[in-house]
Amino acid sequence: MDLDLVRQLAQDADTKIVLFVMDGLGGLPHPETGRTELEAAWTPHLDNIARDSSCGFTMPVGYGITPGSGPGHLALFGYDPLVYTIGRGVLEATGIDFDLQPADIAARGNFCSIDINGKITDRRAGRIPTEKCTELCALLSKIELAGVQTFVEPVREHRFVLVLRGEGLSDQVKDTDPERLGATPLDAEPSGDAGAPTAALVNRWLAEARKVLAGHEPANMLLLRGFAKRPNWPSMPETFKLRAAAVAHYPMYRGLAKLVGMETLTVGPTLQDSIATLRENWGRFDYFFVHYKYTDTAGEDGDYDRKVEKLTEVDDAIEGITDLGPDVLMITGDHSTPATMAGHSWHPVPFMLRSKLGRSDVCESFNEVELLRGSLGTFPAKEALPLAMAHALRFRKYGA
Amino acid sequence: MDLDLVRQLAQDADTKIVLFVMDGLGGLPHPETGRTELEAAWTPHLDNIARDSSCGFTMPVGYGITPGSGPGHLALFGYDPLVYTIGRGVLEATGIDFDLQPADIAARGNFCSIDINGKITDRRAGRIPTEKCTELCALLSKIELAGVQTFVEPVREHRFVLVLRGEGLSDQVKDTDPERLGATPLDAEPSGDAGAPTAALVNRWLAEARKVLAGHEPANMLLLRGFAKRPNWPSMPETFKLRAAAVAHYPMYRGLAKLVGMETLTVGPTLQDSIATLRENWGRFDYFFVHYKYTDTAGEDGDYDRKVEKLTEVDDAIEGITDLGPDVLMITGDHSTPATMAGHSWHPVPFMLRSKLGRSDVCESFNEVELLRGSLGTFPAKEALPLAMAHALRFRKYGA
Repeated sequence: MDLDLVRQLAQDADTKIVLFVMDGLGGLPHPETGRTELEAAWTPHLDNIARDSSCGFTMPVGYGITPGSGPGHLALFGYDPLVYTIGRGVLEATGIDFDLQPADIAARGNFCSIDINGKITDRRAGRIPTEKCTELCALLSKIELAGVQTFVEPVREHRFVLVLRGEGLSDQVKDTDPERLGATPLDAEPSGDAGAPTAALVNRWLAEARKVLAGHEPANMLLLRGFAKRPNWPSMPETFKLRAAAVAHYPMYRGLAKLVGMETLTVGPTLQDSIATLRENWGRFDYFFVHYKYTDTAGEDGDYDRKVEKLTEVDDAIEGITDLGPDVLMITGDHSTPATMAGHSWHPVPFMLRSKLGRSDVCESFNEVELLRGSLGTFPAKEALPLAMAHALRFRKYGA
Repeated sequence: MDLDLVRQLAQDADTKIVLFVMDGLGGLPHPETGRTELEAAWTPHLDNIARDSSCGFTMPVGYGITPGSGPGHLALFGYDPLVYTIGRGVLEATGIDFDLQPADIAARGNFCSIDINGKITDRRAGRIPTEKCTELCALLSKIELAGVQTFVEPVREHRFVLVLRGEGLSDQVKDTDPERLGATPLDAEPSGDAGAPTAALVNRWLAEARKVLAGHEPANMLLLRGFAKRPNWPSMPETFKLRAAAVAHYPMYRGLAKLVGMETLTVGPTLQDSIATLRENWGRFDYFFVHYKYTDTAGEDGDYDRKVEKLTEVDDAIEGITDLGPDVLMITGDHSTPATMAGHSWHPVPFMLRSKLGRSDVCESFNEVELLRGSLGTFPAKEALPLAMAHALRFRKYGA
């Protein structure tokens, strides 16, 4: 739904919406058993919820499109991922609680390894420990550029964020990452006329950085990607009239939540931590986005059995959420990550919405086969929140 | 999917996609048996493929819209048929390998029969043999128009193409075909101000043509339709990064394939011919459009039994395609042509996509009833190729 229409329809109500996202939820049949991860997992609680829900599949972006984490989540937050696009640099900066200003330019950095000829031998510098990353960022922070303030902030392992703050900076700067081994790191090149002065500035900084990192093998050089400015989007509280909170441990998802105006709550890494945080803050918000990362991690690792385990783990804990009695509970993923593909995929994502005002379907369990019988069919993920708003009586009538 | 987005996502891969189109595939229940043509046909091989496919229905253009062959095919090629529109004249000209120039104006011609009062008695001149058509076109080619070059090219039976080549010609000219018996052929009228000089030119040519054809009963007059210029569209090789080939015998479908930049292979009229051509060219292309005409012809003739036979004939031969081992195989139609309607219809068209990376559904056979259980539901035909691209690993991830 167009956000202008959302703004026109949204009204206050004394109801609560929970969006529980199992990252990379959707799967594919195991070549031997023919069963998907969800079919194989023992999920009596999720199945119970399915029997009482409107069921179907979300399409995160469009037919055949494999979404990154950004588009996958923005869609579930009600933002059309083909309209609301963000640069990687901004995503990373927001995710580490960096207070990005509207005119700042942020880029995602990777420490990398180069050989004596300057050729890249490892684009991730052997995934150095976060402590080492922090130490190197402190050294890089000392580089001075005339007229511009620089910030070099560690993220985790080999990843960091570079932020430039000053007058007249542009995000029209290309990546310096050639994205292959054996190549040399690229110079920063403008991607448009406005980017030339900023690109020149970045190149001066890179020359200094190369000197600072010399001898710090395996992290003796760096690569920059996704130069971007903070987007200025309509916020969820203002548009949807929701006091919205994110219960997410990983920086990326916290960053995404902040970009749409959610408050990000402090939370530990486990699902029990998330549920505790949810319970503690239950009275303070109308909408909670609860993120569970480990289904995706297992899928990305191509570990079918571990993905099944993680689904079972979620099932064991899910009563911690249902016991709070949300008026609308949505359970889905941001995209599929089939273990057989060891990566994100385009396949539609299992979805269910439970509400007293919902039509419950005939689905007996929560998996890719049974949900085909659901009433929602395959629908755009960006319509999930509008659906939830309706079930939470938070949309007024359209037209007289 | 928008073609700009396609261009952004498309990447090379060592995979092959086959689109097999049974023209006019979709049907309606026979009034006595209650079974559609596909339900009645003995199709064990297609049913086997269905059990291993993602299934559903394509909607060629939109709810309730009955497509012509042009929009039906363009959608399957990934081109939005509401955005990419073509005049009939261009379609016919391209289909006979006429080398249409960007400024040329092409119209489709029909020889017709008129009585002594000039009223139309047969809009197709008794479907004169192609040889007769060729002979008459040669006579018409001798007509001279000052400042403009004219081409009159036979297509088949009563059909030909008229092409005008010169400075400042416009396609804003209305059809001269009144589309009913007992009326007189119309003068060419401009459909917009820019069309007036061209319409006058066409009328001068028509006056000469009337003299040339006098006495050549039943083909003693002609009708012109679909004045058009060649569109300048993004090509499939450039946009989808596919080396694309058309295995189609009929001019219309070859013409459509050329308009999107496919190479059209030489092929005989039978399905065995098509399969032989496919096999011979298998190594040279990434994408093959294979066209089977006779399901539509039977449907258009209102011949239910023959349509059933033709489906069985396809089933007997389909292993010739599957044996080649395409990474993605799509089997569908460009529109429905129910024998009970003896014409094209708006009904969604049976579709299945088989790929190692697909979710297989619970469909046990390939027909209008069983496919209702498929995971794809009814989806826009223009999204079929994006789906295939994903399954062929020819789309990169969208967003970080």
